[in-house]
Amino acid sequence: MHEEQRQRAGHLLHERGIDAALFASPASITWLTGFAPPVQTGPNPFAAAPPLLWWDGSHFILIVGDALAGLAAPFAEEPDGAVVAYLGYTIEAPIDSASHLRKALRQLWSHSPTSRPARVGVESWALPAAVGGLLAATAANNSEWVNIDNWLAPLRAIKTAEELAKLCENFRLTDIGHAAARRATVAGVREIDVWLAAKTAVEAAAGGRVPMGNDCVVGYRAENIGGWPIDHLLRPGDSLIVDLSTIQHGYWSDSCATYIAGEPDARQRQLHQVVSDALALGAGMLRPGVVAGEIDRRLRQYIADAGYPVYPHHTGHGVGVTGHEAPRLTPYSQEILLPGMVIMLEPGVYFPGETGVRLEDAFLITETGAERLTTHDKSWP
Amino acid sequence: MHEEQRQRAGHLLHERGIDAALFASPASITWLTGFAPPVQTGPNPFAAAPPLLWWDGSHFILIVGDALAGLAAPFAEEPDGAVVAYLGYTIEAPIDSASHLRKALRQLWSHSPTSRPARVGVESWALPAAVGGLLAATAANNSEWVNIDNWLAPLRAIKTAEELAKLCENFRLTDIGHAAARRATVAGVREIDVWLAAKTAVEAAAGGRVPMGNDCVVGYRAENIGGWPIDHLLRPGDSLIVDLSTIQHGYWSDSCATYIAGEPDARQRQLHQVVSDALALGAGMLRPGVVAGEIDRRLRQYIADAGYPVYPHHTGHGVGVTGHEAPRLTPYSQEILLPGMVIMLEPGVYFPGETGVRLEDAFLITETGAERLTTHDKSWP
Repeated sequence: MHEEQRQRAGHLLHERGIDAALFASPASITWLTGFAPPVQTGPNPFAAAPPLLWWDGSHFILIVGDALAGLAAPFAEEPDGAVVAYLGYTIEAPIDSASHLRKALRQLWSHSPTSRPARVGVESWALPAAVGGLLAATAANNSEWVNIDNWLAPLRAIKTAEELAKLCENFRLTDIGHAAARRATVAGVREIDVWLAAKTAVEAAAGGRVPMGNDCVVGYRAENIGGWPIDHLLRPGDSLIVDLSTIQHGYWSDSCATYIAGEPDARQRQLHQVVSDALALGAGMLRPGVVAGEIDRRLRQYIADAGYPVYPHHTGHGVGVTGHEAPRLTPYSQEILLPGMVIMLEPGVYFPGETGVRLEDAFLITETGAERLTTHDKSWP
Repeated sequence: MHEEQRQRAGHLLHERGIDAALFASPASITWLTGFAPPVQTGPNPFAAAPPLLWWDGSHFILIVGDALAGLAAPFAEEPDGAVVAYLGYTIEAPIDSASHLRKALRQLWSHSPTSRPARVGVESWALPAAVGGLLAATAANNSEWVNIDNWLAPLRAIKTAEELAKLCENFRLTDIGHAAARRATVAGVREIDVWLAAKTAVEAAAGGRVPMGNDCVVGYRAENIGGWPIDHLLRPGDSLIVDLSTIQHGYWSDSCATYIAGEPDARQRQLHQVVSDALALGAGMLRPGVVAGEIDRRLRQYIADAGYPVYPHHTGHGVGVTGHEAPRLTPYSQEILLPGMVIMLEPGVYFPGETGVRLEDAFLITETGAERLTTHDKSWP
């Protein structure tokens, strides 16, 4: 699993003269290993540190608290993979997972190839300072410490077939969530009720818990672009932006539709039409070689030419082990679309405090164009 | 908000000769400030670091990515509080929240009282190495670095009235979740369906999203003590352990009951009786001055004397900004119960692959005994 990712990363690191590396960002670790810890109630409080991944120049060693050992186990089956689990919670003695992790790391690094002077890469913004100190004192002793934060992010933009399957499983779930949200959007219910309809449909279909974002906001909110659902009541004719992501296998989906409690008025129909057209315009531009920023400019211009206020957010973004990643469809973006990228497009028009419409689809960039990965119904009756 | 916590912490730090401190663990930060970022889909990917809290010897400065600025804002109203927000996501330029945080921290520390030689405390297991490096290079230059990991944990055991109100709001939600789970436990549904009934009841009552743990496991699972609900089907007579936590305002609840799909058999009734009796025995022992480990021993002995296998987990634990914290009701625990502690008791009996029963209540230790905070119905018809 994820061998291709490790090969790409190893190639980059060798190319840049890195002899060994310590990864600590959840995105890097999931991308390199396929391992994804659950996120819904936060990190395991009995692990001294988040999962870490040590690359000794050829092998990748995943270091986790024992509560995650079962989930991490498949990685030990990889020819270039290994798992080290350290004691977290116990009833036998006061909890001291820091000591157990320290011991495990010392043991790991005691026979490290970097005992010789070497360049050791570290994800310094995600790595705990205590682990960094230990690394400096053992494996990286007499070594040069190189910050490799975000080095892997550009490599992640092109998805493998394995990643595409994980993404598509998530897009299937958000499609299911949207169908339920569409049915649940009626006058007299609250934002949270629509959200719960989507959440229930998603988890019932998945047969298990699924972390879910992003927005479920009624048009009359002062900040009606995004936000978590609360107890705002839907009145007849209110618009509701429903922007759904799911996370399965550490991969995200994304998607957005706008529903109406009852019947839209003429102005809302116009908004919906212009946003639909902008989305279609963007979809038609997706092909290898296009500059991401150019799509952004064209869609903004389209909305402005139609006489509407231009959305203050991006036109789109990549999606993978994070919900928003390269390539970014933003005014500054010089990124070139390439086959294998998975792109979200999400134009919108907002009148804060009144109403708003956003529509979002996912696309795989193919050799000749793009293929839509989301199938949720965004039309209005 | 949470002034008493900051006073307790300041007192401890001064007492131990600490002149300034950088907190990074989510538990410390919530406890000191009342600020609690959402957790359901993980940390904000556009913030360079998790929320940080700098104590300059008298004031507490909360440092967050701008996406959390609104949620953090109330802390700026505190007489000893301030908030620094740095740019995370923008469409104007490539995302570089690390530079923005670095700049914000340099500015903060440039007029720090610790420019003189000082002892600077750091939560080194939660602090990003990059931030630690910056601290060492600026505020902590010529200073001694002292690891203060877990220093606050013992202070957190005694709850303030403000914390008790937050905890009780959560216990009320888990009570609601249990009532729904009890109704939903019938033959023919799956673990996830019961879970969704509880989740829906909790979020509908809260009028918003609520992170929820912990277990929803049918008796015939090989590991039937705990685990997330999946698609295991409940057959007539199957037992289902439902262990629920919610997180509101950064505070956790906890609770457990065992339900039966249909009618329990005679053996299950015996299990339920012995676990009920063990819970009542423990509840009767709760009062100031009792050693936590003694309650643990008594309950284990009670289960063993009744001829059942003794549960492999703790007998109980404190609950607050984490789901499991001091005091711990474990064999080794020498902790003394004190008024203001909030304690979970959760004896159980398990026959892996067959059936199991666990029952759990929360108690506030009062001046003379204990008061039950959970009110969910754990009885069997």
